Amino acid sequence: MGLVVQKYGGSSVADAEGIKRVAKRIVDAKKNGHQVVVVVSAMGDTTDELIDLAGQVSPIPAGREFDMLLTAGERISMALLAMAIKNLGHEAQSFTGSQAGVITDSVHNKARIIDVTPGRIRTALDEGNIAIVAGFQGVSQDKKDITTLGRGGSDTTAVALAAALEAEVCEIYTDVDGVFTADPRVVAKARKIDWISFEDMLELASSGSKVLLHRCVEYARRYNIPIHVRSSFSGLQGTWVSNEPQGDRKVEQAIISGVAHDTSEAKITVVGVPDKPGEAATIFRAIADNQINIDMIVQNVSAASTGLTDISFTLPKTEGRKAIDALEKTKPTIGFESLRYDDQIAKISLVGAGMKTNPGVTAGFFEALSDAGVNIELISTSEIRISVVTRADEVTEAVRAVHTAFGLDSDSDEAVVYGGTGR
Amino acid sequence: MGLVVQKYGGSSVADAEGIKRVAKRIVDAKKNGHQVVVVVSAMGDTTDELIDLAGQVSPIPAGREFDMLLTAGERISMALLAMAIKNLGHEAQSFTGSQAGVITDSVHNKARIIDVTPGRIRTALDEGNIAIVAGFQGVSQDKKDITTLGRGGSDTTAVALAAALEAEVCEIYTDVDGVFTADPRVVAKARKIDWISFEDMLELASSGSKVLLHRCVEYARRYNIPIHVRSSFSGLQGTWVSNEPQGDRKVEQAIISGVAHDTSEAKITVVGVPDKPGEAATIFRAIADNQINIDMIVQNVSAASTGLTDISFTLPKTEGRKAIDALEKTKPTIGFESLRYDDQIAKISLVGAGMKTNPGVTAGFFEALSDAGVNIELISTSEIRISVVTRADEVTEAVRAVHTAFGLDSDSDEAVVYGGTGR
Repeated sequence: MGLVVQKYGGSSVADAEGIKRVAKRIVDAKKNGHQVVVVVSAMGDTTDELIDLAGQVSPIPAGREFDMLLTAGERISMALLAMAIKNLGHEAQSFTGSQAGVITDSVHNKARIIDVTPGRIRTALDEGNIAIVAGFQGVSQDKKDITTLGRGGSDTTAVALAAALEAEVCEIYTDVDGVFTADPRVVAKARKIDWISFEDMLELASSGSKVLLHRCVEYARRYNIPIHVRSSFSGLQGTWVSNEPQGDRKVEQAIISGVAHDTSEAKITVVGVPDKPGEAATIFRAIADNQINIDMIVQNVSAASTGLTDISFTLPKTEGRKAIDALEKTKPTIGFESLRYDDQIAKISLVGAGMKTNPGVTAGFFEALSDAGVNIELISTSEIRISVVTRADEVTEAVRAVHTAFGLDSDSDEAVVYGGTGR
Repeated sequence: MGLVVQKYGGSSVADAEGIKRVAKRIVDAKKNGHQVVVVVSAMGDTTDELIDLAGQVSPIPAGREFDMLLTAGERISMALLAMAIKNLGHEAQSFTGSQAGVITDSVHNKARIIDVTPGRIRTALDEGNIAIVAGFQGVSQDKKDITTLGRGGSDTTAVALAAALEAEVCEIYTDVDGVFTADPRVVAKARKIDWISFEDMLELASSGSKVLLHRCVEYARRYNIPIHVRSSFSGLQGTWVSNEPQGDRKVEQAIISGVAHDTSEAKITVVGVPDKPGEAATIFRAIADNQINIDMIVQNVSAASTGLTDISFTLPKTEGRKAIDALEKTKPTIGFESLRYDDQIAKISLVGAGMKTNPGVTAGFFEALSDAGVNIELISTSEIRISVVTRADEVTEAVRAVHTAFGLDSDSDEAVVYGGTGR
């Protein structure tokens, strides 16, 4: 038996009872002969409470101090978890991100891991300890300041430690049973996925699936660390994310892995852009200079009579105001006619490596939407994904229709193979 | 203007309003041209809440993890304080005990400072920052584990940093106006002391005065760091504790500095001890082997007829059970008759270096108690202190009587000089 890294989120350690339940699960893994490293998030609402306190003393808290503040959260949960494990008669030691050797850049509040030097963790393991590590945090390489990794940071800590320690698996414990073929809150018949490739998981994550963040999956793929997403409540097998199905588990790659949706984006249309070289570049340079990430881009065929075209793109709603302000400033340079802002949109994506070799998936996708009476506003594709933008109020209907059409519903036996005219 | 170290206790930073008020006070010191280092305790009840959480997951939390847990408290307060200062337009950086170079031994929960290497604090100051340091915590020299300093730890952190940084003064901000000639809750006429020597302050601290702990004063005396105890609410001059009165303040050493009382002790009497060499040693070895600190010791003159004597001593009530158990085990060896335990006692102490050269202080002390009808059970003296043990329910009357007799009441003009028969 080798080394496993387990990660527990805030909802799993929300109170003393949760911490004791998690401690038992960790001790079970140890009893099974594994060396165990545990990455833990802050308890339940702790982080929100700390953010609230910060807001009371300063409207715009400084990055360095904000990180110092927030990292108190994991310090509490990891110490309590180590105590609970020792109370069960097993040795445990807790380590901050800094003590665990999680070295980051200096970008406070959203630092990136640049190295992991887990010497103290290795020593603690060799001495028979269970090592408990604070998720979400590290120490900056240059200034030795405490940093936090931003959204999904604890998952990334877990994968990074698993890579540095050459773990067998990184187990991500959460409050759901695994990754599903669609959001179970939208599609009651969504199925738990037993195994999914890194590539498909990356596409799902960037298309709105929230179980694992893109950043964490990307790290796992780079170092080829299998992730096992599972429930900290049920103890059932969850979803394996890896290059190949694990061990003797014969899981065939599904043609379609799942349907993701995202209602967090807005659409901006720049109306009446002169159709000449460089105009699009000027627009997107203005956006990029404001650190705004955009998602889909579509440019209409220009009307021959006017020589003007429209350019639409999607971006996080939270960046909408900033983007509009940036574009208004370019208006004198570009001379477009107007801006339209629309935050009542949804993106629906179909993901599956099988679509590379199975013609007709795109056609089937559009047919399913059409049959459900859903109008398509924008389309974008990658090799293993098709995404469309629809009205926000049609998202539930659209996701269910596509989920059923591709045989993903839990009462159907197998995924359907589509033939046809190609995508 | 030089460097000042300011220390703020938990009651001064109990909520966001408190933190903002303290931030203003710190900025004022900076504006007056000082380099400012601030040591801060955990907010209000944070430490108690963390201890409660620990109790919920483990009946006897491990020392290392308990320290990891508790140090989250100062992490929160120091980050918030730094944010609040930055919000006032001044640069501030917070540092953990470890980052501030507070090096301790490895005795978790009550570590002792063995070195202070404040390189990062010095750099932060040189770059124009106000440095905020977590009180109560350090890092162990050998294992690099996080430690806490135990009771009064934040005051000790402040004095230790003041010594390492060669500060002009260590200001201890608290919720009272300074050190008083007696506990103002007991003696309404108690006066604030303007200046007191280290020696007298040490005696007051070990006699029950709670404003400063013995450990912190001892550290300040060793490195000759003047302490200024003052209110974080009023901004008034408080009490200076130093070798000599500061600057041009002409404060004469009072004959008597104050009256302290302590109701936290109990008395154990070992009855019928054979009066031969080695018996007392066996008794107190048994106590010492259980890490119990004792205070006063009195041995009666033995009765010639029996060759037996009684030995009484006082100790913290919290250690009573342990001491009785330890002594019961020595009974077969020593052959004493019985043990008496009495926790309804009070200790009243009169402190003042002037008593060395002013005969009659002891007599005046006993006369005052006698006039008040207070019976004396035990007596102990040092060069600058007299202590007696009385019944607990007589403590208020006794303290008031002594305070008045030595002219310490706030409506009297001067301390009275006693002449007489010597002590």
